Amino acid sequence: MKFTAVAAIRAIGIDPGSRCTGYGIVEGDGNRLCLVGSGTIQLPARLPFSDRLKVIYDRLMEVIEQNRPECMAVEDVFFAKNVKSALRLGQARGAAILAGANSGLLLHEYSALQIKQAIVGYGKAGKEQVGEMIQYLFKLHGPLDPNASDALAVAVCHLNTHSSRARWQKTESP
Amino acid sequence: MKFTAVAAIRAIGIDPGSRCTGYGIVEGDGNRLCLVGSGTIQLPARLPFSDRLKVIYDRLMEVIEQNRPECMAVEDVFFAKNVKSALRLGQARGAAILAGANSGLLLHEYSALQIKQAIVGYGKAGKEQVGEMIQYLFKLHGPLDPNASDALAVAVCHLNTHSSRARWQKTESP
Repeated sequence: MKFTAVAAIRAIGIDPGSRCTGYGIVEGDGNRLCLVGSGTIQLPARLPFSDRLKVIYDRLMEVIEQNRPECMAVEDVFFAKNVKSALRLGQARGAAILAGANSGLLLHEYSALQIKQAIVGYGKAGKEQVGEMIQYLFKLHGPLDPNASDALAVAVCHLNTHSSRARWQKTESP
Repeated sequence: MKFTAVAAIRAIGIDPGSRCTGYGIVEGDGNRLCLVGSGTIQLPARLPFSDRLKVIYDRLMEVIEQNRPECMAVEDVFFAKNVKSALRLGQARGAAILAGANSGLLLHEYSALQIKQAIVGYGKAGKEQVGEMIQYLFKLHGPLDPNASDALAVAVCHLNTHSSRARWQKTESP
């Protein structure tokens, strides 16, 4: 068992929603994490639903084209308020995942528990604690929009998980 | 009030699902309906979920490119077995709608009640009755795959609804 050099990886995290979809791009090399950019796609209620999906897809295609992440990380959702909101969330999530798939990104999914554990160190942490930790981690002067903050959290979760795996990877002796 | 000439319209109907997605293209001019084509996109369970969404999207983009429909009709779903299946259905539905939106098609949504009413004349008709009526309507020699049949049903529902609206449209006197 040997420590291996970890190349920098750039991940885009997504917090999908039919009213607001957050995204956050983070680069990590196993020792440090660097915030590349983040934002929230606002989806006005007056927009027909199919147009909202197109806005999510088009905007994420642009963000991916501009920032060139290598992979996409999304929260694996298991519950929603009700079936109707699950359907809406599923459609927004589908549009985001397709933007990643059509840009050749590999998809990684993490449960809310794994994300909170990776950011706060406690799987039952509240949304505010995750936001505060993201603010602290990237030395931000103020809190981010919650959707952008949650998107950064899933990107950080992926980079931390990937980095721990790479550190313990078995390598052949020369 | 005057009857107006109704130009032929070609619609693609979609029956989305994360294991099978049906599609059916129908052309209607107000008097007759013509079956252009139909099929079912099979999505093997071994495929990662994001790849399944990409298969739905890519295959529908091809079908739309080959058959040039002007609009897309999809059932407006309000319930599912549970939240998890609603999320999966939502993602498949989102991929199908995006293929339509990215091909410039207008989206029309109909409830299960409206579709059954339009095909069988009875909103509480069973799935088999819809299949039999589709088989009868297009003079098919055998039953279609249920997903393709349901997709044709929503396309027929749209063309019938559109045609009734056009027939009763007010026109200016010359």
